[in-house]
Amino acid sequence: MSLHEVLRRIQSPDRQLLIQAQFRLNRLTKPLGSLGRLEEVAAQYVMISGELKASVPRGTVFTFAADHGVAKEGVSAYPSEVTPQMVLNFLRGGAGVNVLARHVGVDIRVVDIGVAYEFGPMPGLIQKKVMPGTKNILSEPAMSRKQAEQAIMVGVELATQAVQEGIGLIGTGDMGIGNTTPSAAITAVMTGRPVAEVTGRGTGIDDAGHARKVSVIQRALELHRPDRTDALDVLAKVGGLEIGGLAGLILGAAAARVPVVLDGFIAGAAALIAVGLQPRCQDYLIASHRSVERGHQTILDHVGVKPLLDLDLRLGEGTGACLGMSLVCAAVKIFTEMATFDEAGVSEKE
Amino acid sequence: MSLHEVLRRIQSPDRQLLIQAQFRLNRLTKPLGSLGRLEEVAAQYVMISGELKASVPRGTVFTFAADHGVAKEGVSAYPSEVTPQMVLNFLRGGAGVNVLARHVGVDIRVVDIGVAYEFGPMPGLIQKKVMPGTKNILSEPAMSRKQAEQAIMVGVELATQAVQEGIGLIGTGDMGIGNTTPSAAITAVMTGRPVAEVTGRGTGIDDAGHARKVSVIQRALELHRPDRTDALDVLAKVGGLEIGGLAGLILGAAAARVPVVLDGFIAGAAALIAVGLQPRCQDYLIASHRSVERGHQTILDHVGVKPLLDLDLRLGEGTGACLGMSLVCAAVKIFTEMATFDEAGVSEKE
Repeated sequence: MSLHEVLRRIQSPDRQLLIQAQFRLNRLTKPLGSLGRLEEVAAQYVMISGELKASVPRGTVFTFAADHGVAKEGVSAYPSEVTPQMVLNFLRGGAGVNVLARHVGVDIRVVDIGVAYEFGPMPGLIQKKVMPGTKNILSEPAMSRKQAEQAIMVGVELATQAVQEGIGLIGTGDMGIGNTTPSAAITAVMTGRPVAEVTGRGTGIDDAGHARKVSVIQRALELHRPDRTDALDVLAKVGGLEIGGLAGLILGAAAARVPVVLDGFIAGAAALIAVGLQPRCQDYLIASHRSVERGHQTILDHVGVKPLLDLDLRLGEGTGACLGMSLVCAAVKIFTEMATFDEAGVSEKE
Repeated sequence: MSLHEVLRRIQSPDRQLLIQAQFRLNRLTKPLGSLGRLEEVAAQYVMISGELKASVPRGTVFTFAADHGVAKEGVSAYPSEVTPQMVLNFLRGGAGVNVLARHVGVDIRVVDIGVAYEFGPMPGLIQKKVMPGTKNILSEPAMSRKQAEQAIMVGVELATQAVQEGIGLIGTGDMGIGNTTPSAAITAVMTGRPVAEVTGRGTGIDDAGHARKVSVIQRALELHRPDRTDALDVLAKVGGLEIGGLAGLILGAAAARVPVVLDGFIAGAAALIAVGLQPRCQDYLIASHRSVERGHQTILDHVGVKPLLDLDLRLGEGTGACLGMSLVCAAVKIFTEMATFDEAGVSEKE
């Protein structure tokens, strides 16, 4: 399947199903609308799945790992070797995302889409390396247009395969030292906001590091002049491989009519690329949380999604997505398991 | 045990444990503070339990049901018979709180503390009726001071017993047609805010109903003049039996050093009574969510707690508490299950 074909396959869901879903929600033993956002999510899930007989989905988080040439410019508080070290931590089950995925009952799949380290045979690791990290965007494009498309297609294929296996809810996760830098660059280009306004502190750089990061992004954008009307150009020039993989994951899930629960800022940058390529995928997005990272709210506004949680998270990995996926499953269970007024013999509003 | 003895037993937790807990959180494989509110809750849990070797608690939601004499004044969108009907719905597992409790893996205990209906023998129902509904506060006090104390002691004893059985996390739930009226009355008295400012639409009354509700509360407060420095007086004059039970649940849990996850507005009114009786119980409170009900934010500010969720919920029953309890368990698992930098061989901040 080509990227063009994937984009063509993404169709707008039937909005009539939102109304039909709300009709059932209104028959459940609770005051009208009293489950708030859970009702909204339940209706969105019904609309996306196209099934009024919704069933509770099996969920999987895909955590894409990649390195960034720009990390050598001192834009992160941690060294690049942390990327492969954390991949190993994921595979051993000791990272934040592992704990939260176990807690909420979703699986994690860890994908090497561009780590600057040769893992060799490694049980549990999905090896889809496009290249061993991006180039330094301060001097050259992050990757070629062909590599950008290749990264996207890795995500598309993993989503497609997961849905074929029966996964009905996909979460996004990421690991890549330096990856808030390309994410902020993408955000600035795609939303048209000033770099300083959408660039945060990532893993926790100090004031000098933050000023350097803003300057690095500004210079990279001046050098490459990415075309915001061509999301593939933006991804190739200032993006990241995990961001490309996540954009593909979103597109693949949308093409298969499966909702995608976005994690935080990196997922947001991927959503900007995905929506840039195919605006119809917006209907399939559920934002798990509002990240502390400056610029995330700008992304949420631009993409047009409202986060479920606001817990001051900024870890990434898919940690927020796990918590959001649990709320989606809760919403689906409300829709399917609650008794109606008739079934329960409860009197209605006077 | 007397109420006086319970209040005496509630001790302030050792704040030094917050620092020790944060020290461990800072050793886990994540940027400092990057799990935000989950880290705060984990540290609070450690402080409350008094154990740096925290274990994931078994959770139980107590849903107290009671009726309200004031319901005959047209302050609710639903008739009073819905209270016992919903109790039966809880026992059959068809209500919102049942669905969410199953989803997050906590138990529910349903308590008749004052329903105006004789259930007879009923498996699964904890029968602790103090009286069959409160009196109409427009003409007489809701209950006597002795009955108010009795309602509180029902909650104290249920919490005490649950902790003895090994429950380590207690959630609050409520059912009672009309109960946002006494809750708003309590809120107005205890916080000193105008009635109109803290009175919402409950299950969904219209403008005329809302104006009537505000007027009913104002007239009841003028008639009874409850003394805000005497929380038992406030509960007796304008309260509700489930509110008393929940206030007791909070006090009993705090005396046993177990955290209490508050649901929404009714739980907030109960917290105002509990904190009024013993300010030290504040340290044991975790607010699950910010309710849509007007006045809830005033309570949260007054009690000094910050809600974890903001999902436009206003159902009650303990639905928000269930979701909050899941986040507390997630936080405890982060604390206990995540690998440290040393364990995982991950490099630290440069």
